[in-house]
Amino acid sequence: MELRKFFVKAELVPVICQDERSGAVLMLGYANEEALRRTMDTGTAWFFSRSRQKLWNKGETSGNFIFVRRILSDCDDDTLIYVGTPKGPVCHTGHPTCFFTTLWEKNEA
Amino acid sequence: MELRKFFVKAELVPVICQDERSGAVLMLGYANEEALRRTMDTGTAWFFSRSRQKLWNKGETSGNFIFVRRILSDCDDDTLIYVGTPKGPVCHTGHPTCFFTTLWEKNEA
Repeated sequence: MELRKFFVKAELVPVICQDERSGAVLMLGYANEEALRRTMDTGTAWFFSRSRQKLWNKGETSGNFIFVRRILSDCDDDTLIYVGTPKGPVCHTGHPTCFFTTLWEKNEA
Repeated sequence: MELRKFFVKAELVPVICQDERSGAVLMLGYANEEALRRTMDTGTAWFFSRSRQKLWNKGETSGNFIFVRRILSDCDDDTLIYVGTPKGPVCHTGHPTCFFTTLWEKNEA
């Protein structure tokens, strides 16, 4: 599969992980072409860690893998969604999602 | 509100837009501190356009605003979600979401 087009503008694309059952957004990571290819090959979510500058199979140390069922791309080929099912909590804090903080909420008049 | 912490690592953070009714992921944009502040002030989604290098109120030309109800932040303060309701199609192609392409699907054995 021709994956090169996703990495023309930048070497890494943001990848949203979404729970296929609930629709919840679980985390956001970054993938290079090799991470994307490994995700397709293994059916688990792979990323490229910007802080450690290496490929990262989410769950490789914690056991909390994300089993990916489907990958979606956006209209201008610079963002992906891994849709799948997490095994255990996704966040390193133990929360089911990394987005557990409400920063702001609209005041209803 | 202290928003500076989101822009320490980088001037822009990725912002996922999610439909509060369906949970669908609608688009991904980027915000600087001013875009985030304007979103809170106006209740509509603001971004910083990387290609045009300027603040951008989604819908300012098309009328297809996203009315933001809630903003979530992630565990390491470098990604946001605008949760809200779009007016009209979100994507410039006319699709309700920018993620209308299935790149890959797992083969069931």
